[in-house]
Amino acid sequence: MADPTVRHMKWWGWGDEDVTFSDADKPKLWPYLKGELGLADDHRTPPVSFEEIDLPTAKTNAPFTTALEAVLEADQLSATKKDRLVHAAGKAFRDLFRLRRGQVDFAPDLVVYPASEEDVVAIVKAAHEHNAVLIPLGGGSNIAGCLDPKDRDNRFIVSLDMCRMNRVLEVDKKSLIARIQPGVYGPHMEEQLEAEGVTLGHFPDSFVHSTLGGWVATRSAGMQSDKYGKIEDMVIALRMVTPSGTIVTRTVPNSSNGIDVRRLCVGSEGILGVITELTMQVHRLPEYKVFEGWLFPDFESGVAAIHECMRMGIMPVITRLNDPGKTALSAAFKKPDTGLKAQISSALKWYLRTIKGFDFTQCCMMTTACEGDYDTFHQQRRESAYIFKRHRGVCLGEGPGRSFQEAKYDFPHVRDYLMDRGVMGDVSETATTWDNLLTLYTHTLQNIRQAIRDTGADPWVGCHISHNYHTGASLYFTFGCRQIEGRELDQYLYVKKAAEDSFMEHGGTVSHHHAVGSEHLPWIEADLSPTGVKAVAALKDGLDPKGVMNPGKIIPGEHPLAEWGLTEEAIQSFKKGN
Amino acid sequence: MADPTVRHMKWWGWGDEDVTFSDADKPKLWPYLKGELGLADDHRTPPVSFEEIDLPTAKTNAPFTTALEAVLEADQLSATKKDRLVHAAGKAFRDLFRLRRGQVDFAPDLVVYPASEEDVVAIVKAAHEHNAVLIPLGGGSNIAGCLDPKDRDNRFIVSLDMCRMNRVLEVDKKSLIARIQPGVYGPHMEEQLEAEGVTLGHFPDSFVHSTLGGWVATRSAGMQSDKYGKIEDMVIALRMVTPSGTIVTRTVPNSSNGIDVRRLCVGSEGILGVITELTMQVHRLPEYKVFEGWLFPDFESGVAAIHECMRMGIMPVITRLNDPGKTALSAAFKKPDTGLKAQISSALKWYLRTIKGFDFTQCCMMTTACEGDYDTFHQQRRESAYIFKRHRGVCLGEGPGRSFQEAKYDFPHVRDYLMDRGVMGDVSETATTWDNLLTLYTHTLQNIRQAIRDTGADPWVGCHISHNYHTGASLYFTFGCRQIEGRELDQYLYVKKAAEDSFMEHGGTVSHHHAVGSEHLPWIEADLSPTGVKAVAALKDGLDPKGVMNPGKIIPGEHPLAEWGLTEEAIQSFKKGN
Repeated sequence: MADPTVRHMKWWGWGDEDVTFSDADKPKLWPYLKGELGLADDHRTPPVSFEEIDLPTAKTNAPFTTALEAVLEADQLSATKKDRLVHAAGKAFRDLFRLRRGQVDFAPDLVVYPASEEDVVAIVKAAHEHNAVLIPLGGGSNIAGCLDPKDRDNRFIVSLDMCRMNRVLEVDKKSLIARIQPGVYGPHMEEQLEAEGVTLGHFPDSFVHSTLGGWVATRSAGMQSDKYGKIEDMVIALRMVTPSGTIVTRTVPNSSNGIDVRRLCVGSEGILGVITELTMQVHRLPEYKVFEGWLFPDFESGVAAIHECMRMGIMPVITRLNDPGKTALSAAFKKPDTGLKAQISSALKWYLRTIKGFDFTQCCMMTTACEGDYDTFHQQRRESAYIFKRHRGVCLGEGPGRSFQEAKYDFPHVRDYLMDRGVMGDVSETATTWDNLLTLYTHTLQNIRQAIRDTGADPWVGCHISHNYHTGASLYFTFGCRQIEGRELDQYLYVKKAAEDSFMEHGGTVSHHHAVGSEHLPWIEADLSPTGVKAVAALKDGLDPKGVMNPGKIIPGEHPLAEWGLTEEAIQSFKKGN
Repeated sequence: MADPTVRHMKWWGWGDEDVTFSDADKPKLWPYLKGELGLADDHRTPPVSFEEIDLPTAKTNAPFTTALEAVLEADQLSATKKDRLVHAAGKAFRDLFRLRRGQVDFAPDLVVYPASEEDVVAIVKAAHEHNAVLIPLGGGSNIAGCLDPKDRDNRFIVSLDMCRMNRVLEVDKKSLIARIQPGVYGPHMEEQLEAEGVTLGHFPDSFVHSTLGGWVATRSAGMQSDKYGKIEDMVIALRMVTPSGTIVTRTVPNSSNGIDVRRLCVGSEGILGVITELTMQVHRLPEYKVFEGWLFPDFESGVAAIHECMRMGIMPVITRLNDPGKTALSAAFKKPDTGLKAQISSALKWYLRTIKGFDFTQCCMMTTACEGDYDTFHQQRRESAYIFKRHRGVCLGEGPGRSFQEAKYDFPHVRDYLMDRGVMGDVSETATTWDNLLTLYTHTLQNIRQAIRDTGADPWVGCHISHNYHTGASLYFTFGCRQIEGRELDQYLYVKKAAEDSFMEHGGTVSHHHAVGSEHLPWIEADLSPTGVKAVAALKDGLDPKGVMNPGKIIPGEHPLAEWGLTEEAIQSFKKGN
């Protein structure tokens, strides 16, 4: 790769090749997990080595390749084993499970690195003319199966890696908009924006390893969405290359130009075309910013506190509320306290238990961040603190806030640690209205736990709230259990199904910010309604008549559950406890 | 009509049948207009009488009508002259011009009043099966030709009047959402919401005569959009009946469920289907609210003041800034001052001229409103006042605010007054970025003026800003001139074209909140890009394969300008001054 800013993640897990998650400084983590999940100390399930991987033989499509060679440089095309493997999957649980076992049944036949919109136009044209499948790829961090290199018709499959289109092209500091190429990774983009004194304000947990184009294509949400909005709220204009031409929308703050074409492209997950340029709303860098920790006696109090902040228009930029399960897991991540710090900690615990009457099994940790200019920052911090205290919140100061800030992009690494130890760990997230929130929370917690028990394992399930709206909030569930050997994928699908079924049953949505991809196909018709899916299919048929753009995503087949991989037999056998 | 809440506007103009715009209490108005436009006192061009109107003979479609009669009550169908005439057009300039002259070349063959979603489903099914054209209609106030009862294939045309679906069905006061039927008029809806202590916060100038469904179908903006957002920001979920089934989205604050199907329905102007239910975000009623007037020495200062409020996050809920032209027109609307009030007014003028150095030909009036609970209201008012003063604004107090508040829905009446006197008056509005705003403003003002002069008349052009965003604002141009007898429509189109051409040339959009309809078709391809239009057409083809839903709107034909009605000959003759 010519560009020093481009680093693909390790092919079998999260993060850079040379970064591994270690529990050396987290003495409580393994004992906690072992106790919760009934694990054995010596059970290790490491990934196979690169050398052990056998990729499927690359198909050929000479007319397509020839057409590309005429317009691209030699280093813009690659079919090396490493490149094909890195682009063979996203980071969904099933992706990693299979990769770690060396089960790579699908891989792109070619990886292409466009460097300009002209390159993309040529590639899309060649794919349309020569019936090659294109799978646009940003950071490759998607966990919903958006990047599956599969095709029902077994066509030649091309991974379209956007990583060389990574420049901030223009910043209009008066209008606070920036024209940005979609293949830029989070840190590289913020670095370029910061040089102009502005920020996009979009910091998803995947920030380090995901791209602007990926965020927009999947309707991502960053941890400061309460201030800056979800990514779709920030898109002022875009350019998207489709097999039927290039969509170009105008750089205007709003319009009444019929159906909002910009919004058709946002969230299209690569099934209509390739986003080649984004004009984004940006913000001046905040002068002040502080992260803090708060402890609430229970989840209900924390939720009520956030809701009141929202109603009063006093939202910090982050309010991430862990439920008791997630709070306990976070505590297990802590470095050991020593000396004075340990004593203060003991004193605080005494105070909370004795004076405030906290039950530590029900306690909920909340991380907050306030930011802004002097007035905004102080008002936000003062008034939100007042509301938190009214709901029995206790401020733990900036210490926990700093810990969160330091480790905020590390959480996705944990799954590798778990998978090294025969543990299934994954997430499912949704959103619902305030009135419905605790009902959905309680039922989903129960349903996931029961599903895990059905499979014969002890459940760990936790939840946090991290994106809040006038009318409701998102709920992010994390679950884990010991894997049942020989039935790991059936077990996973059975549990994941329990989570998504619960969302559908209790007034949630299929996903709040992880996309549909192929992993959420069994629920998309319930979410959008059958006619809603028809609308999406109509767009797809109209703009991509040969179906070369990322097939098999968003629009379900005729038997979504079976195509997803879960048989009625497997379901019944778990239900019966076999 | 059975329902007392349903009142159609007069067929030839704006407002209720029994309400007429009068200048009896506005002694300065006629002299001002006469002076600006070179008008004659005795030139009167009143509308023809109802009796003089000859409607085109109603076509028949027996299979369709029979299908409807099987499911609807007799009073839900009407083909009376009055009903057909009232539903023959919206309130675009051309609509009114033709109606007033008795030129009714197109009218629906039947008017249908559904009372439930089941009714709508039956009507849409019958239309699809028996090839009848449906034109969904809310208040009938649209001024962009969204309601034109025309069909290229000369099919049976049905106006689908939604006015009987006018109930607020449910208010969730915890989540602050309300489930509302789309045919409800603004005042009737707010009355039902107010009974629950909430408000939608959407107050377009057409408020009294337009409906929720119409607002959503056209991406309307209300005068308090700076606080409450544009109508599309308020839609939490919806139901829309299409010829391919009913789209139903889930009641969740946000989602990552692929392409946002909700957003495909918003702004679809009836070309995909009929909105039958809307779940809207609502707000608690504000405790405090005050309207005020401010005077700025020039337009630039006023724009800079608004922009700074936006950057500082201190936006009043209304900041409507008139340019010098619009300020002069507003002044001509004033009731005569008497006694003490006149003396104060003189003193204020002396102060502004002598002490503040205001040039009254350049002065710009701004109307503001602040609202909220005690803290929010006072902070908003205090801090915005501080910013306005920094930009040389002078507060005129609550008097002008009250005048605005009293007359805020009256402005659309003025056009009838003008058309009674042989004057063309219309509006074109757009939005652009802050950086581009004054450039677009200056050029568009010049371009409209020049176009009017080309037609041989003296121009009056004014502008106001009333919807503000982080990245830009909307610009609302009002223009008028003496009509050239015998060439009134060519003259109108020539001037309107100058405005829209200028938007396209100078970084604006085709419309900020008036929709595309048929009146903006010549510019929609420039606005959405040809591939963007293809995307809309793909949706239309997929959901409405027989093209029965409101044909001829949003998607342009092959020769949009000619189909619009303006010939190259007419353009050239004006350019040459003939």
